[in-house]
Amino acid sequence: MPADLDAQFAFLAEADRLKSVYRATTLHDGSRRENTAEHSWHVALYALVLAEQAAPGVNIDRVIRMLLLHDLVEIDTGDVPIHSANGAAHASLETQAAEQRAADRLFGLLPADQAQAFRALWDEFEANETPDARFAKSLDRLPPVMANLASGGGTWVEYAVTYEQLEARVGHKIARGAPGLWDWVQGKTKAWFSARP
Amino acid sequence: MPADLDAQFAFLAEADRLKSVYRATTLHDGSRRENTAEHSWHVALYALVLAEQAAPGVNIDRVIRMLLLHDLVEIDTGDVPIHSANGAAHASLETQAAEQRAADRLFGLLPADQAQAFRALWDEFEANETPDARFAKSLDRLPPVMANLASGGGTWVEYAVTYEQLEARVGHKIARGAPGLWDWVQGKTKAWFSARP
Repeated sequence: MPADLDAQFAFLAEADRLKSVYRATTLHDGSRRENTAEHSWHVALYALVLAEQAAPGVNIDRVIRMLLLHDLVEIDTGDVPIHSANGAAHASLETQAAEQRAADRLFGLLPADQAQAFRALWDEFEANETPDARFAKSLDRLPPVMANLASGGGTWVEYAVTYEQLEARVGHKIARGAPGLWDWVQGKTKAWFSARP
Repeated sequence: MPADLDAQFAFLAEADRLKSVYRATTLHDGSRRENTAEHSWHVALYALVLAEQAAPGVNIDRVIRMLLLHDLVEIDTGDVPIHSANGAAHASLETQAAEQRAADRLFGLLPADQAQAFRALWDEFEANETPDARFAKSLDRLPPVMANLASGGGTWVEYAVTYEQLEARVGHKIARGAPGLWDWVQGKTKAWFSARP
């Protein structure tokens, strides 16, 4: 229906703004900060590549759909770096309330049935309880670790993060939905933190 | 297997370089050119949002997987704008050969079975013959049209493109896999070209 297409293209045009939301994490080569649109592509690719690390029964295509949508709310809220405010800002009640308002507005641009379906998927991701959401949330924590390892420390240096803080804020969350991945990454991060200047 | 993870993370690190490949198309607000990683996210989102425009039997999750992978070769080849060289460079034999070499190298970073599966999906996209590939290819042509409409002409102005050239290079290709989408977009583009300064 043309009315649906009007709404869908309005949503897709609004989504373009995610390319102008910048995160604390840099590209692997350290040349600039990463934006949330390209992060969303990269983490969806992580899901495709690392699918066999998911728990039995995880539907990777649902995980990919979640990851394509998961950060759209940042169009309104911006990115809240996980290590900012000594780790306290990222999941604050204030941040969560702002994200809920953003989800209302953004998914509300779509035709009603699609708005409901996308919102349900985003709510499921945020709740972090189903196997699909847990794997998606674990994957979402990984690319910044890999970028920091590649770029000489990145946000760990910027925010003076210790290995213990990394393990508490990031490692345990990766391990919850993807223990095999944390096993692999933990070795690399421990080596980096013990050799840090 | 750790050996597989070593290979998979090497591939994901290499993929990060797609964020530094710039296209002719700008963001909707015209503020800068778009990179291929954020384009890949946006077009995957197009697939999710516009799924009901696909022909019967199209598997949208396969389409999304294709779109996540479709432009990785540009890490080695760069983007070849569709309107450059008066429309002749984009699908030249030289460009195609360079993309094949890039696909060999990039997918070759992965464990063998995964390399084969991803390469098959990319080959299917490039061949543009299955219903999934045809829908994916049609979607891939759409975001630059929407960006040009939003930003005051963009690459149409830059490359002095006529409506007839747009229809031949882009419109017919969108119509092949997504006729309902070209119907909708055609009206907008005709209006833009007849009102152009």
